[in-house]
Amino acid sequence: MIETENAIGVISMFYARPFTRDHFDCFHRMKKAGADVVELLVPEPGELDLRETKAAIADAGLSCVLAARVNLARDLSSADEAAYKGGVAYLESTVDTAAALGATIVGGPLYGAPMVFAGRAPTPITADERKRRVDAVVAGLKQAGRRAADQGVAFGVEPLNRFESDVCNTARHALEIVDRVDNPAVGVMLDTFHMNMEEFDIADAIRKTGSKIVHFQANENNRGFVGSGHIDWASVARAIRDVAYTGPIVLEPFRRSDEGAGVTLAQWRAPTVNEDGELAASIAYLKAALAFARQTA
Amino acid sequence: MIETENAIGVISMFYARPFTRDHFDCFHRMKKAGADVVELLVPEPGELDLRETKAAIADAGLSCVLAARVNLARDLSSADEAAYKGGVAYLESTVDTAAALGATIVGGPLYGAPMVFAGRAPTPITADERKRRVDAVVAGLKQAGRRAADQGVAFGVEPLNRFESDVCNTARHALEIVDRVDNPAVGVMLDTFHMNMEEFDIADAIRKTGSKIVHFQANENNRGFVGSGHIDWASVARAIRDVAYTGPIVLEPFRRSDEGAGVTLAQWRAPTVNEDGELAASIAYLKAALAFARQTA
Repeated sequence: MIETENAIGVISMFYARPFTRDHFDCFHRMKKAGADVVELLVPEPGELDLRETKAAIADAGLSCVLAARVNLARDLSSADEAAYKGGVAYLESTVDTAAALGATIVGGPLYGAPMVFAGRAPTPITADERKRRVDAVVAGLKQAGRRAADQGVAFGVEPLNRFESDVCNTARHALEIVDRVDNPAVGVMLDTFHMNMEEFDIADAIRKTGSKIVHFQANENNRGFVGSGHIDWASVARAIRDVAYTGPIVLEPFRRSDEGAGVTLAQWRAPTVNEDGELAASIAYLKAALAFARQTA
Repeated sequence: MIETENAIGVISMFYARPFTRDHFDCFHRMKKAGADVVELLVPEPGELDLRETKAAIADAGLSCVLAARVNLARDLSSADEAAYKGGVAYLESTVDTAAALGATIVGGPLYGAPMVFAGRAPTPITADERKRRVDAVVAGLKQAGRRAADQGVAFGVEPLNRFESDVCNTARHALEIVDRVDNPAVGVMLDTFHMNMEEFDIADAIRKTGSKIVHFQANENNRGFVGSGHIDWASVARAIRDVAYTGPIVLEPFRRSDEGAGVTLAQWRAPTVNEDGELAASIAYLKAALAFARQTA
Protein backbone atom coordinates (compact mmCIF):
# COMPACT_ATOMS: atom_id res chain seq x y z
CA MET A 1 0.00 0.00 0.00
CA ILE A 2 1.20 3.51 -0.80
CA GLU A 3 1.71 5.82 2.15
CA THR A 4 1.06 9.53 2.42
CA GLU A 5 2.57 11.89 4.97
CA ASN A 6 -0.60 13.93 5.28
CA ALA A 7 -3.59 12.87 7.36
CA ILE A 8 -6.55 12.96 4.96
CA GLY A 9 -10.04 13.56 6.22
CA VAL A 10 -13.48 15.03 5.81
CA ILE A 11 -15.53 17.72 7.52
CA SER A 12 -18.42 16.70 9.78
CA MET A 13 -20.86 18.78 7.65
CA PHE A 14 -20.44 16.18 4.91
CA TYR A 15 -22.84 14.07 6.97
CA ALA A 16 -24.91 16.40 9.12
CA ARG A 17 -25.33 19.91 10.44
CA PRO A 18 -25.65 20.37 13.34
CA PHE A 19 -23.40 17.44 14.14
CA THR A 20 -24.31 15.86 17.49
CA ARG A 21 -23.64 12.67 19.43
CA ASP A 22 -26.35 11.07 17.26
CA HIS A 23 -23.85 11.25 14.40
CA PHE A 24 -20.87 9.65 16.16
CA ASP A 25 -21.25 6.59 13.89
CA CYS A 26 -20.03 8.87 11.09
CA PHE A 27 -16.54 8.76 12.64
CA HIS A 28 -16.45 5.03 11.88
CA ARG A 29 -17.92 5.56 8.41
CA MET A 30 -15.25 8.11 7.50
CA LYS A 31 -12.51 5.85 8.88
CA LYS A 32 -13.85 3.03 6.72
CA ALA A 33 -13.76 5.39 3.71
CA GLY A 34 -10.04 5.89 4.31
CA ALA A 35 -10.04 9.03 6.46
CA ASP A 36 -7.40 9.66 9.12
CA VAL A 37 -8.79 12.91 10.51
CA VAL A 38 -12.14 14.59 11.06
CA GLU A 39 -12.67 18.33 10.80
CA LEU A 40 -15.31 19.45 13.28
CA LEU A 41 -17.00 22.81 13.37
CA VAL A 42 -16.03 24.27 16.73
CA PRO A 43 -19.02 23.14 18.78
CA GLU A 44 -21.25 25.85 20.15
CA PRO A 45 -21.95 25.56 23.88
CA GLY A 46 -24.16 22.52 24.55
CA GLU A 47 -23.84 21.11 21.02
CA LEU A 48 -21.31 18.39 21.87
CA ASP A 49 -19.82 17.06 25.11
CA LEU A 50 -16.11 17.57 24.49
CA ARG A 51 -14.85 14.64 26.60
CA GLU A 52 -17.34 12.24 25.01
CA THR A 53 -16.57 13.58 21.52
CA LYS A 54 -12.83 13.24 22.01
CA ALA A 55 -13.34 9.62 23.10
CA ALA A 56 -15.61 8.85 20.12
CA ILE A 57 -13.07 10.30 17.66
CA ALA A 58 -10.25 8.32 19.27
CA ASP A 59 -12.39 5.18 19.29
CA ALA A 60 -12.71 5.44 15.51
CA GLY A 61 -8.95 5.88 15.17
CA LEU A 62 -9.13 9.46 13.92
CA SER A 63 -7.41 12.70 14.82
CA CYS A 64 -9.27 16.04 14.86
CA VAL A 65 -8.94 19.57 13.50
CA LEU A 66 -11.36 22.42 14.13
CA ALA A 67 -13.14 24.90 11.89
CA ALA A 68 -13.98 28.21 13.59
CA ARG A 69 -17.45 29.70 13.12
CA VAL A 70 -17.25 33.45 12.95
CA ASN A 71 -20.24 35.73 12.55
CA LEU A 72 -20.99 39.45 12.72
CA ALA A 73 -20.85 39.36 16.53
CA ARG A 74 -17.43 37.63 16.45
CA ASP A 75 -15.69 39.86 14.00
CA LEU A 76 -12.09 41.05 14.24
CA SER A 77 -12.76 43.30 11.23
CA SER A 78 -15.61 45.16 12.89
CA ALA A 79 -15.53 48.83 13.80
CA ASP A 80 -17.92 47.91 16.63
CA GLU A 81 -15.87 47.34 19.76
CA ALA A 82 -18.18 44.65 21.15
CA ALA A 83 -18.01 42.66 17.92
CA TYR A 84 -14.22 43.01 17.81
CA LYS A 85 -13.85 41.89 21.42
CA GLY A 86 -16.35 39.11 20.73
CA GLY A 87 -14.10 38.00 17.88
CA VAL A 88 -11.00 37.89 20.07
CA ALA A 89 -12.83 36.13 22.92
CA TYR A 90 -14.29 33.60 20.51
CA LEU A 91 -10.90 32.78 18.99
CA GLU A 92 -9.44 32.39 22.49
CA SER A 93 -12.30 30.04 23.39
CA THR A 94 -11.62 27.91 20.31
CA VAL A 95 -8.09 27.34 21.62
CA ASP A 96 -9.56 25.97 24.85
CA THR A 97 -11.97 23.78 22.86
CA ALA A 98 -9.09 22.50 20.74
CA ALA A 99 -7.09 21.64 23.84
CA ALA A 100 -10.08 19.77 25.30
CA LEU A 101 -10.52 17.78 22.08
CA GLY A 102 -6.81 17.13 21.57
CA ALA A 103 -6.82 19.18 18.37
CA THR A 104 -3.86 21.37 17.45
CA ILE A 105 -5.30 23.35 14.54
CA VAL A 106 -8.16 25.85 14.35
CA GLY A 107 -8.79 27.11 10.84
CA GLY A 108 -11.28 29.27 8.97
CA PRO A 109 -12.05 32.90 8.12
CA LEU A 110 -10.84 33.95 11.56
CA TYR A 111 -10.83 37.62 10.56
CA GLY A 112 -14.63 37.78 10.49
CA ALA A 113 -16.73 40.06 8.29
CA PRO A 114 -18.63 37.19 6.64
CA MET A 115 -20.38 38.37 3.50
CA VAL A 116 -22.91 36.42 1.51
CA PHE A 117 -23.75 33.91 4.25
CA ALA A 118 -24.35 36.77 6.68
CA GLY A 119 -26.55 38.54 4.13
CA ARG A 120 -23.91 41.19 3.50
CA ALA A 121 -23.60 42.21 -0.15
CA PRO A 122 -20.35 43.37 -1.79
CA THR A 123 -20.06 47.13 -1.44
CA PRO A 124 -17.21 49.54 -2.04
CA ILE A 125 -14.89 50.07 0.95
CA THR A 126 -12.79 53.21 1.31
CA ALA A 127 -9.02 52.85 1.46
CA ASP A 128 -9.08 54.11 5.06
CA GLU A 129 -11.66 51.53 6.07
CA ARG A 130 -9.69 48.77 4.32
CA LYS A 131 -6.63 49.73 6.32
CA ARG A 132 -8.59 49.98 9.58
CA ARG A 133 -10.07 46.52 9.07
CA VAL A 134 -6.78 44.83 8.25
CA ASP A 135 -5.08 46.59 11.17
CA ALA A 136 -7.85 45.39 13.49
CA VAL A 137 -7.55 41.83 12.20
CA VAL A 138 -3.81 41.89 12.80
CA ALA A 139 -4.28 43.24 16.35
CA GLY A 140 -6.96 40.66 17.15
CA LEU A 141 -4.87 37.78 15.82
CA LYS A 142 -1.87 39.02 17.80
CA GLN A 143 -3.95 38.90 20.98
CA ALA A 144 -5.73 35.56 20.38
CA GLY A 145 -2.51 34.14 18.96
CA ARG A 146 -0.86 34.38 22.38
CA ARG A 147 -3.46 31.96 23.78
CA ALA A 148 -2.87 29.65 20.83
CA ALA A 149 0.90 29.68 21.29
CA ASP A 150 0.53 28.99 25.01
CA GLN A 151 -1.65 25.95 24.34
CA GLY A 152 0.31 24.53 21.41
CA VAL A 153 -2.51 25.29 18.98
CA ALA A 154 -2.08 26.86 15.53
CA PHE A 155 -4.55 29.23 13.90
CA GLY A 156 -5.00 28.92 10.14
CA VAL A 157 -6.19 32.14 8.46
CA GLU A 158 -8.24 31.05 5.46
CA PRO A 159 -8.73 33.26 2.39
CA LEU A 160 -12.28 32.94 1.05
CA ASN A 161 -13.58 33.79 -2.40
CA ARG A 162 -14.76 37.31 -3.22
CA PHE A 163 -18.41 36.53 -2.49
CA GLU A 164 -17.69 35.26 1.02
CA SER A 165 -15.08 37.80 2.13
CA ASP A 166 -13.88 41.28 1.30
CA VAL A 167 -11.05 41.09 3.84
CA CYS A 168 -8.94 38.19 2.62
CA ASN A 169 -9.36 36.49 -0.79
CA THR A 170 -5.96 35.14 -1.77
CA ALA A 171 -2.95 33.40 -0.26
CA ARG A 172 -1.11 36.68 -0.69
CA HIS A 173 -3.74 38.53 1.32
CA ALA A 174 -3.48 35.92 4.09
CA LEU A 175 0.33 36.12 4.07
CA GLU A 176 0.13 39.89 4.32
CA ILE A 177 -1.92 39.50 7.51
CA VAL A 178 0.02 36.58 8.97
CA ASP A 179 3.41 38.20 8.34
CA ARG A 180 2.26 41.24 10.30
CA VAL A 181 0.96 39.08 13.18
CA ASP A 182 4.43 37.49 13.30
CA ASN A 183 3.57 34.59 15.61
CA PRO A 184 4.46 31.01 14.61
CA ALA A 185 1.09 29.95 16.06
CA VAL A 186 -0.74 31.98 13.38
CA GLY A 187 -0.39 30.62 9.86
CA VAL A 188 -2.35 30.27 6.63
CA MET A 189 -5.02 27.75 5.71
CA LEU A 190 -5.64 27.15 2.00
CA ASP A 191 -8.76 25.74 0.29
CA THR A 192 -8.64 24.84 -3.40
CA PHE A 193 -12.33 25.79 -3.85
CA HIS A 194 -11.54 29.40 -3.04
CA MET A 195 -8.12 29.29 -4.74
CA ASN A 196 -9.81 28.11 -7.96
CA MET A 197 -11.75 31.38 -8.00
CA GLU A 198 -9.09 33.82 -6.85
CA GLU A 199 -5.53 32.69 -7.56
CA PHE A 200 -3.76 33.10 -10.90
CA ASP A 201 -1.85 29.83 -10.32
CA ILE A 202 -2.92 27.50 -7.50
CA ALA A 203 0.36 25.55 -7.31
CA ASP A 204 2.37 28.77 -7.32
CA ALA A 205 0.24 30.18 -4.49
CA ILE A 206 0.84 27.01 -2.45
CA ARG A 207 4.60 27.29 -3.03
CA LYS A 208 4.64 30.96 -2.07
CA THR A 209 2.71 30.26 1.12
CA GLY A 210 5.23 27.53 1.84
CA SER A 211 6.06 26.92 5.49
CA LYS A 212 3.24 29.22 6.62
CA ILE A 213 0.60 26.62 5.67
CA VAL A 214 -0.95 25.15 8.81
CA HIS A 215 -4.04 23.54 7.29
CA PHE A 216 -5.34 22.59 3.84
CA GLN A 217 -8.78 21.84 2.39
CA ALA A 218 -8.95 19.89 -0.86
CA ASN A 219 -12.14 20.75 -2.72
CA GLU A 220 -13.11 20.44 -6.34
CA ASN A 221 -13.81 23.60 -8.32
CA ASN A 222 -17.57 23.09 -7.86
CA ARG A 223 -17.44 21.25 -4.51
CA GLY A 224 -18.03 17.94 -6.23
CA PHE A 225 -16.00 14.94 -5.07
CA VAL A 226 -12.24 15.33 -5.41
CA GLY A 227 -11.40 13.84 -8.81
CA SER A 228 -14.72 14.73 -10.46
CA GLY A 229 -13.90 18.29 -11.52
CA HIS A 230 -11.04 20.25 -13.05
CA ILE A 231 -8.66 21.02 -10.18
CA ASP A 232 -5.22 19.80 -11.28
CA TRP A 233 -4.59 17.50 -8.32
CA ALA A 234 -1.24 16.22 -9.59
CA SER A 235 -0.02 19.81 -9.67
CA VAL A 236 -1.49 20.56 -6.22
CA ALA A 237 0.14 17.43 -4.80
CA ARG A 238 3.55 18.37 -6.22
CA ALA A 239 3.29 21.84 -4.70
CA ILE A 240 2.34 20.34 -1.31
CA ARG A 241 5.36 18.07 -1.63
CA ASP A 242 7.66 20.93 -2.55
CA VAL A 243 6.72 23.00 0.49
CA ALA A 244 7.03 19.89 2.72
CA TYR A 245 3.52 20.39 4.08
CA THR A 246 2.79 17.30 6.18
CA GLY A 247 -0.33 18.51 8.00
CA PRO A 248 -3.95 17.47 7.50
CA ILE A 249 -5.82 17.75 4.20
CA VAL A 250 -9.60 17.79 4.56
CA LEU A 251 -12.39 17.34 2.00
CA GLU A 252 -15.73 19.18 1.96
CA PRO A 253 -17.73 17.69 -0.94
CA PHE A 254 -21.09 19.41 -0.68
CA ARG A 255 -22.30 19.24 -4.27
CA ARG A 256 -24.89 16.55 -3.50
CA SER A 257 -26.90 14.73 -6.15
CA ASP A 258 -29.95 17.01 -6.46
CA GLU A 259 -28.95 18.85 -9.63
CA GLY A 260 -31.52 20.87 -11.55
CA ALA A 261 -32.49 24.46 -12.29
CA GLY A 262 -33.55 26.23 -9.10
CA VAL A 263 -31.37 24.24 -6.68
CA THR A 264 -29.53 26.47 -4.18
CA LEU A 265 -25.98 25.29 -4.73
CA ALA A 266 -24.54 27.90 -2.35
CA GLN A 267 -26.72 26.72 0.51
CA TRP A 268 -25.59 23.78 2.64
CA ARG A 269 -27.86 20.83 1.88
CA ALA A 270 -28.01 17.52 3.71
CA PRO A 271 -27.04 14.39 1.77
CA THR A 272 -30.03 12.68 0.14
CA VAL A 273 -28.23 9.40 -0.53
CA ASN A 274 -25.31 7.55 1.05
CA GLU A 275 -22.15 8.99 -0.49
CA ASP A 276 -19.60 6.90 1.42
CA GLY A 277 -18.44 5.20 -1.77
CA GLU A 278 -17.77 8.49 -3.54
CA LEU A 279 -15.92 9.78 -0.45
CA ALA A 280 -13.73 6.66 -0.38
CA ALA A 281 -12.95 7.12 -4.07
CA SER A 282 -11.97 10.77 -3.51
CA ILE A 283 -9.73 9.94 -0.55
CA ALA A 284 -8.02 7.17 -2.54
CA TYR A 285 -7.59 9.56 -5.50
CA LEU A 286 -6.03 12.27 -3.35
CA LYS A 287 -3.78 9.85 -1.47
CA ALA A 288 -2.56 8.45 -4.79
CA ALA A 289 -1.85 11.94 -6.15
CA LEU A 290 0.13 12.82 -3.01
CA ALA A 291 2.03 9.52 -2.98
CA PHE A 292 2.96 9.71 -6.67
CA ALA A 293 4.10 13.32 -6.21
CA ARG A 294 6.53 12.15 -3.52
CA GLN A 295 7.66 9.09 -5.51
CA THR A 296 8.46 11.16 -8.56
CA ALA A 297 10.20 14.04 -6.78
CA MET B 1 -2.27 36.83 -40.10
CA ILE B 2 -4.40 34.11 -38.57
CA GLU B 3 -8.15 34.50 -38.88
CA THR B 4 -10.86 33.55 -36.41
CA GLU B 5 -14.51 32.98 -37.21
CA ASN B 6 -15.68 34.56 -33.95
CA ALA B 7 -15.90 38.29 -33.38
CA ILE B 8 -13.83 38.94 -30.26
CA GLY B 9 -14.57 41.87 -28.01
CA VAL B 10 -14.79 43.45 -24.60
CA ILE B 11 -17.56 44.76 -22.38
CA SER B 12 -17.96 48.51 -21.92
CA MET B 13 -17.56 48.13 -18.12
CA PHE B 14 -13.91 47.32 -18.73
CA TYR B 15 -13.47 51.08 -19.17
CA ALA B 16 -16.27 52.81 -17.31
CA ARG B 17 -19.60 52.44 -15.56
CA PRO B 18 -21.88 54.15 -16.32
CA PHE B 19 -20.72 54.23 -19.92
CA THR B 20 -21.78 57.45 -21.63
CA ARG B 21 -20.99 59.46 -24.77
CA ASP B 22 -17.94 60.77 -22.89
CA HIS B 23 -16.48 57.27 -23.29
CA PHE B 24 -17.03 56.85 -27.04
CA ASP B 25 -13.25 57.08 -27.58
CA CYS B 26 -13.11 53.64 -25.90
CA PHE B 27 -14.65 52.14 -29.05
CA HIS B 28 -11.51 53.17 -30.93
CA ARG B 29 -9.24 51.98 -28.12
CA MET B 30 -10.82 48.53 -28.12
CA LYS B 31 -10.61 48.34 -31.91
CA LYS B 32 -6.93 49.20 -31.68
CA ALA B 33 -6.53 46.42 -29.08
CA GLY B 34 -7.88 43.94 -31.63
CA ALA B 35 -11.58 43.89 -30.74
CA ASP B 36 -14.26 43.30 -33.35
CA VAL B 37 -17.30 43.75 -31.12
CA VAL B 38 -18.34 45.73 -28.05
CA GLU B 39 -20.70 44.40 -25.42
CA LEU B 40 -22.79 47.23 -24.02
CA LEU B 41 -24.95 47.08 -20.94
CA VAL B 42 -28.47 47.74 -22.21
CA PRO B 43 -28.62 51.50 -21.66
CA GLU B 44 -31.14 52.73 -19.13
CA PRO B 45 -33.40 55.52 -20.42
CA GLY B 46 -31.37 58.70 -20.92
CA GLU B 47 -27.99 57.00 -20.47
CA LEU B 48 -27.07 56.86 -24.14
CA ASP B 49 -28.61 58.23 -27.32
CA LEU B 50 -29.13 55.07 -29.36
CA ARG B 51 -28.71 56.61 -32.79
CA GLU B 52 -25.54 58.43 -31.78
CA THR B 53 -24.18 55.31 -30.05
CA LYS B 54 -24.87 53.12 -33.06
CA ALA B 55 -23.00 55.60 -35.25
CA ALA B 56 -20.04 55.78 -32.85
CA ILE B 57 -19.74 51.99 -32.72
CA ALA B 58 -19.92 51.75 -36.51
CA ASP B 59 -17.39 54.56 -36.85
CA ALA B 60 -14.89 52.49 -34.85
CA GLY B 61 -15.56 49.47 -37.08
CA LEU B 62 -17.18 47.38 -34.32
CA SER B 63 -20.36 45.36 -34.04
CA CYS B 64 -22.42 45.32 -30.85
CA VAL B 65 -24.02 42.83 -28.46
CA LEU B 66 -26.10 43.72 -25.41
CA ALA B 67 -26.01 42.64 -21.77
CA ALA B 68 -29.38 42.84 -20.01
CA ARG B 69 -29.56 44.40 -16.53
CA VAL B 70 -32.12 42.62 -14.42
CA ASN B 71 -32.98 43.54 -10.85
CA LEU B 72 -35.59 42.62 -8.26
CA ALA B 73 -38.21 44.77 -10.05
CA ARG B 74 -37.45 43.04 -13.40
CA ASP B 75 -37.60 39.47 -12.26
CA LEU B 76 -39.16 36.59 -14.19
CA SER B 77 -38.57 34.38 -11.12
CA SER B 78 -40.58 36.57 -8.79
CA ALA B 79 -43.82 35.53 -7.11
CA ASP B 80 -44.75 39.21 -7.21
CA GLU B 81 -46.84 39.83 -10.32
CA ALA B 82 -45.56 43.37 -10.85
CA ALA B 83 -41.94 42.19 -10.71
CA TYR B 84 -42.69 39.32 -13.10
CA LYS B 85 -44.45 41.64 -15.55
CA GLY B 86 -41.63 44.12 -15.11
CA GLY B 87 -39.22 41.37 -16.12
CA VAL B 88 -41.16 40.51 -19.28
CA ALA B 89 -41.61 44.16 -20.24
CA TYR B 90 -37.92 44.84 -19.65
CA LEU B 91 -36.82 41.92 -21.82
CA GLU B 92 -39.20 43.08 -24.56
CA SER B 93 -37.73 46.58 -24.30
CA THR B 94 -34.20 45.21 -24.70
CA VAL B 95 -35.26 43.74 -28.04
CA ASP B 96 -36.30 47.19 -29.20
CA THR B 97 -33.01 48.63 -27.94
CA ALA B 98 -31.09 45.92 -29.77
CA ALA B 99 -32.95 46.68 -32.97
CA ALA B 100 -32.19 50.38 -32.60
CA LEU B 101 -28.47 49.66 -32.08
CA GLY B 102 -28.24 47.04 -34.82
CA ALA B 103 -27.46 44.32 -32.24
CA THR B 104 -28.84 40.81 -32.66
CA ILE B 105 -27.99 39.31 -29.24
CA VAL B 106 -29.17 40.18 -25.73
CA GLY B 107 -27.52 38.06 -23.06
CA GLY B 108 -27.35 37.84 -19.29
CA PRO B 109 -29.20 36.39 -16.30
CA LEU B 110 -32.50 37.08 -18.01
CA TYR B 111 -34.41 34.98 -15.45
CA GLY B 112 -33.86 37.56 -12.71
CA ALA B 113 -33.62 36.81 -8.98
CA PRO B 114 -30.17 38.38 -8.59
CA MET B 115 -28.56 37.30 -5.33
CA VAL B 116 -25.41 38.72 -3.85
CA PHE B 117 -25.39 41.94 -5.89
CA ALA B 118 -29.01 42.59 -4.88
CA GLY B 119 -28.13 41.93 -1.23
CA ARG B 120 -30.00 38.61 -1.26
CA ALA B 121 -28.22 35.86 0.68
CA PRO B 122 -28.40 32.16 -0.21
CA THR B 123 -31.33 30.59 1.63
CA PRO B 124 -33.07 27.23 1.28
CA ILE B 125 -35.87 27.11 -1.31
CA THR B 126 -38.65 24.55 -1.12
CA ALA B 127 -39.09 22.12 -4.00
CA ASP B 128 -42.48 23.73 -4.79
CA GLU B 129 -40.95 27.21 -4.92
CA ARG B 130 -38.10 25.96 -7.12
CA LYS B 131 -40.63 24.58 -9.56
CA ARG B 132 -42.77 27.73 -9.45
CA ARG B 133 -39.76 29.91 -10.20
CA VAL B 134 -38.51 27.82 -13.10
CA ASP B 135 -42.04 27.58 -14.53
CA ALA B 136 -42.37 31.37 -14.29
CA VAL B 137 -39.01 31.90 -16.00
CA VAL B 138 -40.06 29.59 -18.84
CA ALA B 139 -43.40 31.41 -19.23
CA GLY B 140 -41.71 34.83 -19.21
CA LEU B 141 -39.09 33.79 -21.76
CA LYS B 142 -41.80 32.33 -23.98
CA GLN B 143 -43.60 35.67 -23.96
CA ALA B 144 -40.58 37.95 -24.41
CA GLY B 145 -39.08 35.45 -26.85
CA ARG B 146 -41.87 36.17 -29.32
CA ARG B 147 -40.75 39.80 -29.53
CA ALA B 148 -37.15 38.64 -30.00
CA ALA B 149 -38.08 36.24 -32.79
CA ASP B 150 -40.14 38.94 -34.54
CA GLN B 151 -37.18 41.34 -34.50
CA GLY B 152 -34.46 38.86 -35.41
CA VAL B 153 -32.86 39.13 -31.97
CA ALA B 154 -31.64 36.17 -29.89
CA PHE B 155 -31.79 36.00 -26.11
CA GLY B 156 -28.89 34.24 -24.34
CA VAL B 157 -29.81 32.79 -20.94
CA GLU B 158 -26.64 32.93 -18.85
CA PRO B 159 -26.00 30.58 -15.92
CA LEU B 160 -24.30 32.44 -13.06
CA ASN B 161 -22.30 31.00 -10.19
CA ARG B 162 -24.03 29.90 -6.96
CA PHE B 163 -23.41 33.22 -5.21
CA GLU B 164 -25.06 35.26 -7.95
CA SER B 165 -28.02 33.01 -8.77
CA ASP B 166 -30.09 30.25 -7.24
CA VAL B 167 -32.16 29.82 -10.40
CA CYS B 168 -29.59 28.83 -13.03
CA ASN B 169 -25.98 27.87 -12.25
CA THR B 170 -24.87 25.45 -14.97
CA ALA B 171 -25.17 24.93 -18.70
CA ARG B 172 -27.48 22.03 -17.90
CA HIS B 173 -29.77 24.28 -15.88
CA ALA B 174 -29.88 26.78 -18.76
CA LEU B 175 -30.58 24.02 -21.28
CA GLU B 176 -33.40 22.74 -19.07
CA ILE B 177 -35.00 26.20 -19.25
CA VAL B 178 -34.26 26.88 -22.91
CA ASP B 179 -35.50 23.47 -24.04
CA ARG B 180 -38.81 24.17 -22.35
CA VAL B 181 -39.08 27.63 -23.92
CA ASP B 182 -38.59 25.93 -27.30
CA ASN B 183 -38.03 29.06 -29.37
CA PRO B 184 -34.96 29.33 -31.63
CA ALA B 185 -34.69 32.98 -30.53
CA VAL B 186 -33.97 31.88 -26.93
CA GLY B 187 -30.62 30.14 -26.44
CA VAL B 188 -27.83 29.81 -23.91
CA MET B 189 -25.00 32.18 -23.09
CA LEU B 190 -21.91 30.73 -21.42
CA ASP B 191 -19.26 32.50 -19.33
CA THR B 192 -16.08 30.65 -18.36
CA PHE B 193 -15.86 32.60 -15.05
CA HIS B 194 -19.09 31.02 -13.86
CA MET B 195 -18.37 27.67 -15.56
CA ASN B 196 -15.04 27.48 -13.70
CA MET B 197 -17.00 27.47 -10.44
CA GLU B 198 -19.93 25.25 -11.36
CA GLU B 199 -19.20 22.81 -14.19
CA PHE B 200 -17.45 19.48 -13.74
CA ASP B 201 -15.86 19.83 -17.20
CA ILE B 202 -15.99 23.16 -19.03
CA ALA B 203 -15.29 21.76 -22.51
CA ASP B 204 -17.85 19.01 -22.03
CA ALA B 205 -20.48 21.57 -20.96
CA ILE B 206 -19.75 23.64 -24.09
CA ARG B 207 -20.14 20.56 -26.28
CA LYS B 208 -23.39 19.56 -24.60
CA THR B 209 -24.81 23.06 -25.05
CA GLY B 210 -23.79 22.83 -28.69
CA SER B 211 -26.00 24.61 -31.17
CA LYS B 212 -27.97 26.31 -28.37
CA ILE B 213 -25.07 28.68 -27.65
CA VAL B 214 -25.97 32.20 -28.75
CA HIS B 215 -23.28 34.15 -26.90
CA PHE B 216 -20.02 33.45 -25.06
CA GLN B 217 -17.96 35.33 -22.47
CA ALA B 218 -14.30 34.39 -22.09
CA ASN B 219 -13.12 35.20 -18.58
CA GLU B 220 -10.24 33.91 -16.52
CA ASN B 221 -11.00 31.95 -13.37
CA ASN B 222 -10.36 35.07 -11.25
CA ARG B 223 -11.40 37.69 -13.84
CA GLY B 224 -7.80 38.47 -14.60
CA PHE B 225 -6.81 38.95 -18.22
CA VAL B 226 -7.43 35.95 -20.48
CA GLY B 227 -4.17 34.00 -20.45
CA SER B 228 -3.12 35.02 -16.93
CA GLY B 229 -5.03 32.34 -14.99
CA HIS B 230 -5.79 28.65 -15.19
CA ILE B 231 -8.70 28.32 -17.63
CA ASP B 232 -7.61 25.77 -20.25
CA TRP B 233 -8.14 27.99 -23.28
CA ALA B 234 -6.91 25.44 -25.81
CA SER B 235 -9.56 23.05 -24.53
CA VAL B 236 -12.24 25.77 -24.58
CA ALA B 237 -11.27 26.74 -28.13
CA ARG B 238 -11.49 23.12 -29.33
CA ALA B 239 -14.94 22.76 -27.80
CA ILE B 240 -16.09 26.00 -29.46
CA ARG B 241 -14.73 24.64 -32.75
CA ASP B 242 -16.48 21.30 -32.28
CA VAL B 243 -19.90 22.88 -31.75
CA ALA B 244 -19.30 25.23 -34.70
CA TYR B 245 -20.03 28.29 -32.58
CA THR B 246 -19.20 31.28 -34.76
CA GLY B 247 -20.82 34.03 -32.68
CA PRO B 248 -19.18 36.71 -30.55
CA ILE B 249 -16.80 36.02 -27.66
CA VAL B 250 -16.48 38.86 -25.18
CA LEU B 251 -13.95 39.52 -22.39
CA GLU B 252 -14.71 41.08 -19.00
CA PRO B 253 -11.34 41.42 -17.23
CA PHE B 254 -12.21 43.23 -14.00
CA ARG B 255 -9.40 42.07 -11.72
CA ARG B 256 -7.65 45.45 -11.82
CA SER B 257 -4.22 46.09 -10.35
CA ASP B 258 -5.11 47.11 -6.79
CA GLU B 259 -4.37 43.80 -5.06
CA GLY B 260 -4.06 43.66 -1.27
CA ALA B 261 -5.92 42.43 1.78
CA GLY B 262 -9.21 44.29 2.17
CA VAL B 263 -9.83 44.98 -1.53
CA THR B 264 -13.42 44.22 -2.58
CA LEU B 265 -12.76 41.88 -5.50
CA ALA B 266 -16.48 41.17 -5.99
CA GLN B 267 -17.28 44.83 -6.40
CA TRP B 268 -16.86 46.48 -9.79
CA ARG B 269 -13.92 48.85 -9.60
CA ALA B 270 -12.83 51.41 -12.17
CA PRO B 271 -9.45 50.90 -13.83
CA THR B 272 -6.66 52.76 -12.06
CA VAL B 273 -4.15 52.46 -14.91
CA ASN B 274 -4.39 52.10 -18.68
CA GLU B 275 -4.84 48.38 -19.36
CA ASP B 276 -5.10 48.56 -23.17
CA GLY B 277 -1.85 46.59 -23.59
CA GLU B 278 -3.07 43.74 -21.40
CA LEU B 279 -6.39 43.70 -23.26
CA ALA B 280 -4.60 43.50 -26.62
CA ALA B 281 -2.47 40.62 -25.30
CA SER B 282 -5.59 38.75 -24.12
CA ILE B 283 -7.41 39.24 -27.42
CA ALA B 284 -4.34 38.03 -29.36
CA TYR B 285 -4.04 35.04 -27.01
CA LEU B 286 -7.68 34.05 -27.44
CA LYS B 287 -7.63 34.56 -31.21
CA ALA B 288 -4.54 32.36 -31.44
CA ALA B 289 -6.16 29.63 -29.34
CA LEU B 290 -9.27 29.70 -31.56
CA ALA B 291 -7.27 29.74 -34.78
CA PHE B 292 -4.99 26.88 -33.72
CA ALA B 293 -8.01 24.85 -32.64
CA ARG B 294 -9.43 25.18 -36.15
CA GLN B 295 -6.07 24.50 -37.85
CA THR B 296 -5.56 21.30 -35.89
CA ALA B 297 -9.09 19.93 -36.17
